[in-house]
Amino acid sequence: MRLQSKKTLTIRNKTLGGPTPWICLPLVAEDGDSLLQQAKEVLAYTPDALEWRADKFEAVRDTGAVLDALNHLREAIGDIPLIFTCRIIEEGGFQEIAENERIAVMDAVIASGKADFIDTEISNGAAMIAAVKQACVNAGAKLILSYHNFEETPAESFIVGKLSEAAKLGGDVAKVAVMPKDYGDVLTLLSATYKARTELLDIPIITLSMGGEGGITRIAGGLFGSDLTFAIGKASSAPGQIPIGDIRKAWEALPF
Amino acid sequence: MRLQSKKTLTIRNKTLGGPTPWICLPLVAEDGDSLLQQAKEVLAYTPDALEWRADKFEAVRDTGAVLDALNHLREAIGDIPLIFTCRIIEEGGFQEIAENERIAVMDAVIASGKADFIDTEISNGAAMIAAVKQACVNAGAKLILSYHNFEETPAESFIVGKLSEAAKLGGDVAKVAVMPKDYGDVLTLLSATYKARTELLDIPIITLSMGGEGGITRIAGGLFGSDLTFAIGKASSAPGQIPIGDIRKAWEALPF
Repeated sequence: MRLQSKKTLTIRNKTLGGPTPWICLPLVAEDGDSLLQQAKEVLAYTPDALEWRADKFEAVRDTGAVLDALNHLREAIGDIPLIFTCRIIEEGGFQEIAENERIAVMDAVIASGKADFIDTEISNGAAMIAAVKQACVNAGAKLILSYHNFEETPAESFIVGKLSEAAKLGGDVAKVAVMPKDYGDVLTLLSATYKARTELLDIPIITLSMGGEGGITRIAGGLFGSDLTFAIGKASSAPGQIPIGDIRKAWEALPF
Repeated sequence: MRLQSKKTLTIRNKTLGGPTPWICLPLVAEDGDSLLQQAKEVLAYTPDALEWRADKFEAVRDTGAVLDALNHLREAIGDIPLIFTCRIIEEGGFQEIAENERIAVMDAVIASGKADFIDTEISNGAAMIAAVKQACVNAGAKLILSYHNFEETPAESFIVGKLSEAAKLGGDVAKVAVMPKDYGDVLTLLSATYKARTELLDIPIITLSMGGEGGITRIAGGLFGSDLTFAIGKASSAPGQIPIGDIRKAWEALPF
């Protein structure tokens, strides 16, 4: 049996943090039509969750356009849990978005109730995070607080600290994604995951090591405490993602 | 790319320690007929190597019977590298064998040239190991020096120490197999493997964590430096072994 979350989250009758990690497929599209098309295509893979990377959406600054696309997306995907994510360039996002524009679109998406999770970087600071958290509480959405590092893998204690910080700041889910330079860094990420899960956090966590070396964390991170893995359906959203079919084949040999 | 061995071993034109870990299937049979039958059945899986666990062989004390079975086995398997292993009960073996009987059968097997590797426990002590090593050198066989612990997973430094000891005592391959109580122990084994491979040893190594939790090391240990994994063809020889087909399916998502 894998190392499960002490507290689980039930979203649209599906449980995050249980015996089997979720597989989430990213939606990375420039406009509403291609977003819908991509969503329909990836549904065939029966993912546990979808993540709309709205920072790829050309009209991301137009709240009306985003809500319109979101409504159509929700109609298409039914009750599949949906993560809404809008990163700026410094966070690994696809385009620059002014702070006030990003807050406006996030607030509107949260209030709509059409997205189940909102992902926000811890680096956005306590004030913005508190505001987003309050909006989530008001609307019944869940907050994923995340730390990404596309350059390197910090020390185990730093990664554990980021996961703890996410929980303390009100995250319903804590996420860390880091870039390894070698397989030692991959072990650092897995070890930090295990330590956070067994010693510190009771909420679901998402951890992964990116790039080629990190691929094993996308397959086996769930053993050590990670509750969700991102895979490739139609499009990749980060370096090192593996096709969902390959992950499921690998899982036949694991206790998921 | 996985973490490969600095020195490789070429046995019957096959390289141990290269880009792809070897998959070895155990042969665990009570007599010569069933040994041959099992060998023929597992050949269908095209393993990289076979290990004859001779301690299961009822006539293991009869050197003539062992050599006869070995000759037929070699005829049946052609040029597949063969590991000959004869454990006593304290080493996880299937039956008690007197020390002089074990040495006699090992000497005869090594001298025959029909087995490519001989596995011996480090705990047998320097004198016996030196004798086995000399016999291997004389006959051109390779020595696997191993440490098994079916009770627990010792500290990382202890595991690294055993792998180093195996190399210092003349092992051509160093092997460690330990039992985890949790996924933290599994990470200890992987971390010891990585450390031994990157900092200390240049010879091929075989490391694994047994039991259900340890299964991931049988699939992914090769990333972190282990050069061979034991899988189930027809019969299992240790707790936690995974069918060879499941390992190969999992490897489709790994850089082997």
